[in-house]
Amino acid sequence: MTGAVPDGFELLVLDCGHNDSFGPAYVNLPEHKIGFRVGPQHLNPVGGLHGGAMATFADMQISAVGPEAYDAHRATISLTVDFMAPVGPGTWVEAEVVCPKQTRTLVFTQAIITADGAPVARTSGIYRNASKTA
Amino acid sequence: MTGAVPDGFELLVLDCGHNDSFGPAYVNLPEHKIGFRVGPQHLNPVGGLHGGAMATFADMQISAVGPEAYDAHRATISLTVDFMAPVGPGTWVEAEVVCPKQTRTLVFTQAIITADGAPVARTSGIYRNASKTA
Amino acid sequence: MTGAVPDGFELLVLDCGHNDSFGPAYVNLPEHKIGFRVGPQHLNPVGGLHGGAMATFADMQISAVGPEAYDAHRATISLTVDFMAPVGPGTWVEAEVVCPKQTRTLVFTQAIITADGAPVARTSGIYRNASKTA
Amino acid sequence: MTGAVPDGFELLVLDCGHNDSFGPAYVNLPEHKIGFRVGPQHLNPVGGLHGGAMATFADMQISAVGPEAYDAHRATISLTVDFMAPVGPGTWVEAEVVCPKQTRTLVFTQAIITADGAPVARTSGIYRNASKTA
Repeated sequence: MTGAVPDGFELLVLDCGHNDSFGPAYVNLPEHKIGFRVGPQHLNPVGGLHGGAMATFADMQISAVGPEAYDAHRATISLTVDFMAPVGPGTWVEAEVVCPKQTRTLVFTQAIITADGAPVARTSGIYRNASKTA
Repeated sequence: MTGAVPDGFELLVLDCGHNDSFGPAYVNLPEHKIGFRVGPQHLNPVGGLHGGAMATFADMQISAVGPEAYDAHRATISLTVDFMAPVGPGTWVEAEVVCPKQTRTLVFTQAIITADGAPVARTSGIYRNASKTA
Repeated sequence: MTGAVPDGFELLVLDCGHNDSFGPAYVNLPEHKIGFRVGPQHLNPVGGLHGGAMATFADMQISAVGPEAYDAHRATISLTVDFMAPVGPGTWVEAEVVCPKQTRTLVFTQAIITADGAPVARTSGIYRNASKTA
Repeated sequence: MTGAVPDGFELLVLDCGHNDSFGPAYVNLPEHKIGFRVGPQHLNPVGGLHGGAMATFADMQISAVGPEAYDAHRATISLTVDFMAPVGPGTWVEAEVVCPKQTRTLVFTQAIITADGAPVARTSGIYRNASKTA
């Protein structure tokens, strides 16, 4: 059913213009998951998910690392996205975020991104580790 | 002057929902440049340019490679963005896109991205080389 | 015990000058693992594992994807390595290689690399999918 | 002439096992260039430059940024190499290293790598900015 959000996900509340423009994204913090449903505002000229929309979603991976995501802004240092398959409109896109390492200054995160359960992209990010709230 | 576009740039016409959501971007094809002015829809929770908006812009680099950008959709295979400095609202963000190599199947592009002339990010992309129009 | 190789690993036989120069690497194909022990030829000027040696090892990830690794040469298209912690001499370095996607033309692989069990690097690679033997 | 080194290059003296194993590399510091000639120890099973050898060379880019490269060890944080064309034995491989940004904690470098003058790879690196000598 287009528009439905899987159980366990709640709206990611990030009060900023860019997230408003992207549209609703959802997190399942206990499972370190983040997701969104592909809408008209995410589409490229040939009717699939735009690479830039996927990259925007990939950059949100830091928000699913844990509850502290709501309290601190962590600046992105490096973001890589590899696109493995096209994604159609209406699809539920989801990432289970892994944090293989956190140092005093850096947070490393990564995810395989699925669309309706099939792998369509993967991403890795390096973020600045902020010890204090924004 | 906020809102002004440098001489030589014209509106990038890409008819799709994601570009509508991002807002206007501009290209200077003879100089392989692409740019946009940071608006409210690009901001992160701490009032600077959102990493995802920068990544979306980075993904547009393929559009500045040449005139054929208007006629063919080239799917992104890999996109990397490194963030070197924060970017404030109202800034003119610009990339001069370099294409170091084009093979039968792949197009390699890259750019150093500036904000009001100072380097703030760099990006590299690998795109599928499409021989036919979308 | 320095020099020991864990059970289940066998020598990776790749007949070429660069692998001779790197020294022995080992694979556990059923578990998609590859590993090596850090020797003098892998060290940087401050006595730890050289970034280039780690990158060479990272590039070998394609060899652990499966048995066909022995029969076909797959050219690397893109290789990313993120370094998360320094690695000392004598350490057993290991990667469990994941292949999230294989298309007609591309193979995507990735791994979190550990040293004596602790995560020290991560890598992702895109390789050309060769259908015929080298 | 195989074995010749272009004018202006001098031997990169890095006293460590890994550089001994790689073989001689050369720098032209005033022009921020680094290079090497492809020898038997750099070859892959199909007789071209091994992806790992190219990655090792890419990691050396930090050494061509300036004279301070000889006095301080800068740990690699992230290294990306994109391979654009195969490279044959005997070729002179060269990179002109660009440093688009240096912050208090990070050094960003990148290069387009050529073989006998033709672009064959590109690389970008993020290194830890060390203020003191190793």
